[in-house]
Amino acid sequence: MKRGKLIVISGPSGVGKGTIVKEFINDPELKLSYSVSMTTRSMRPGEVDGVNYDYVSKEEFKQAIENDELLEYAEFVGNFYGTPLKNVNRLLDEGRNVLLEIEVQGCMQVQKKVPDALSIFITPPSMEELERRIRGRATEPEEIVQQRLSKAQKEMELVGKYKYAICNDDVALAAELVKTIIRYYSNKE
Amino acid sequence: MKRGKLIVISGPSGVGKGTIVKEFINDPELKLSYSVSMTTRSMRPGEVDGVNYDYVSKEEFKQAIENDELLEYAEFVGNFYGTPLKNVNRLLDEGRNVLLEIEVQGCMQVQKKVPDALSIFITPPSMEELERRIRGRATEPEEIVQQRLSKAQKEMELVGKYKYAICNDDVALAAELVKTIIRYYSNKE
Repeated sequence: MKRGKLIVISGPSGVGKGTIVKEFINDPELKLSYSVSMTTRSMRPGEVDGVNYDYVSKEEFKQAIENDELLEYAEFVGNFYGTPLKNVNRLLDEGRNVLLEIEVQGCMQVQKKVPDALSIFITPPSMEELERRIRGRATEPEEIVQQRLSKAQKEMELVGKYKYAICNDDVALAAELVKTIIRYYSNKE
Repeated sequence: MKRGKLIVISGPSGVGKGTIVKEFINDPELKLSYSVSMTTRSMRPGEVDGVNYDYVSKEEFKQAIENDELLEYAEFVGNFYGTPLKNVNRLLDEGRNVLLEIEVQGCMQVQKKVPDALSIFITPPSMEELERRIRGRATEPEEIVQQRLSKAQKEMELVGKYKYAICNDDVALAAELVKTIIRYYSNKE
């Protein structure tokens, strides 16, 4: 069986990665699967352990890092997020294309470990629009909003490390472009 | 009549911008026109004055800069290249979408003067592949090859200033993606 392709969708927090991915994640033609990530953050209402994330303690997370069991991991606003290598490889071996929706620093780690991963950066229409979107969530204190914005500024300097950058000006357009890209690499030899 | 859209296609020298643009420049649906650029470099065999470029002296070029007649300009390997504003505005007024295929520093100038320009960066599959392509031209001394490569490295740090970055892994795919993007912005509101 043809091994699947590792696809990394990344971009600043609040840019709308999740909204774009929802448009095509279930398209059977793309044979996409999410790899469930591991996190130390608390479960939010409506989330399910093993579906949204594997929720673990900081101790368990550190153990996974030490055992080199993670394809990538990142700390964000005091919590850890990571991708267990075992989950990803099992899906790729089954011929699934594995989609990781991760932070920029995580993507840099993946590119080192898997140089032929397909990397796509989602860019905001403008930094002003990104700020509006982050504030629109209205669930976070000002300090965290400022952290997200300053982090986004730095992340935009790394767009050149990605194969593609797609602007989230319009969700339907962005989803169509990402689909076209995934379809091509998925069918390639 | 609906005014046309200014579209800037940019990216490192040797990345294959021209090859991609050739795939769709004559597609009538996209209503694209080239704006003829101004240059001080010598005419090459087969080129036509007023078609490939407006060929001018360094004196004439400097005069155009002083008179603020250029949308952007850049010096590259000792020669100047620029876009006369008059040519661009005339085409936009006629409802044509104007495509500029320009260097990265020129694109930064355009974005300042025309913030709603549609900017697309063409990225190489890898820096190694870009080097192979630049050497493949085999018409330039080593010193100029090295200048191009070190310039390309710096340009990749500016990809985040563009709305889109499209990898030239495959010309047909890249052309399809750029066409999809242009079609969307051309038909918008």
